[in-house]
Amino acid sequence: MTDIFFDFVCPYAWRGLEMAALLRPQGESFRLRHFSLVEGNHPDNKDGLNWRITDQPADADGGEEYMQYQRPSLNAFLAAQAAYRQGEEAAWNFTLALYRAHHEQKRELEEATFTQAAQEVRLNLEQWQRDRQDAAGLRRSLRADLDAAAEIGVFGTPTFVLDDGSAAYYRFENLVRDPDRARQLWTLYTNVLHSGAGIATIKRAKHRPAHRQ
Amino acid sequence: MTDIFFDFVCPYAWRGLEMAALLRPQGESFRLRHFSLVEGNHPDNKDGLNWRITDQPADADGGEEYMQYQRPSLNAFLAAQAAYRQGEEAAWNFTLALYRAHHEQKRELEEATFTQAAQEVRLNLEQWQRDRQDAAGLRRSLRADLDAAAEIGVFGTPTFVLDDGSAAYYRFENLVRDPDRARQLWTLYTNVLHSGAGIATIKRAKHRPAHRQ
Repeated sequence: MTDIFFDFVCPYAWRGLEMAALLRPQGESFRLRHFSLVEGNHPDNKDGLNWRITDQPADADGGEEYMQYQRPSLNAFLAAQAAYRQGEEAAWNFTLALYRAHHEQKRELEEATFTQAAQEVRLNLEQWQRDRQDAAGLRRSLRADLDAAAEIGVFGTPTFVLDDGSAAYYRFENLVRDPDRARQLWTLYTNVLHSGAGIATIKRAKHRPAHRQ
Repeated sequence: MTDIFFDFVCPYAWRGLEMAALLRPQGESFRLRHFSLVEGNHPDNKDGLNWRITDQPADADGGEEYMQYQRPSLNAFLAAQAAYRQGEEAAWNFTLALYRAHHEQKRELEEATFTQAAQEVRLNLEQWQRDRQDAAGLRRSLRADLDAAAEIGVFGTPTFVLDDGSAAYYRFENLVRDPDRARQLWTLYTNVLHSGAGIATIKRAKHRPAHRQ
């Protein structure tokens, strides 16, 4: 069982989840877990988790630029936590539908989008809306994921945590739609983590604007 | 031909060079190139290369903590640039000898260490000392490497730049001494860069100290 940590605002996490979705019918199992980029990058959290997204109101407007993600991220997490109470398949279906709505169809992470995703994947809507009223319970489950992510040292999404505890951020630019390509990508990733050389980082350089002479 | 950018102060670059050295007899060719971590991380260089290590005196004492590397790094580069005038094998031999002296035998990057490395790999010592007097010429060659690194967007060492221009930082913790393991590590790296998915980053999470509740 591999844990996959993600934030709905993150396009890299979307690609990672689509890869994982292609691997599930091939016998790989993944557990869906939430990690908040806003919380992870919050300046008050440099020496520990002092600022928690789970303590913020659902309608909070983040002040700083990067905080613009706070409200959509938190509300997407909470809508998803409610969906997850309907079982693993419902959880995967809702998660992928919401990711595609946001990153493919460019819809905002807001109430209308959550509801449309729930309808699209045929959640039990009545139950889902009832579960969404349990704000304290949903925030507790979310917080358990965020606490686990912090213990592991997750810093970005998607981060995959393998059975043996090895964990790494895995970022790729192109959406994979072919199961064999997904398998190759996954094999490559696990080979890197298990190479025996203790590979800690492979990170592409980016061409910079010409420097001053 | 793969360019390998390195700084003598960096232990990860040392491991990368040892891997490359094991691959050379297997038909891979690498060009030795310098990248200065002190210059790359200098606060004045956020918007371009305003502060150049090649403009600093050889005996400069960096003030800030990270600047402690300035003098040893610059002087190792210049000693190596002089050695490189004696051909490719001399360049590899001197580079590896100096890396091992510093990172394995824990000797400082200073004059006595440079001279011992030069003797150990049987450089033409007279020529080497004469070439070292050409401070302006050595700094020009060094600067050409640093300029090239900046164009590529090198940010850490070792960074390998493949024939097709793809470039990435490659960090691993364990020294490789077996040629087959070196081949595996290299194949893994090139597969990651050429996966077709545009893999930009694989980076391990690190367990953090327990957060505050």
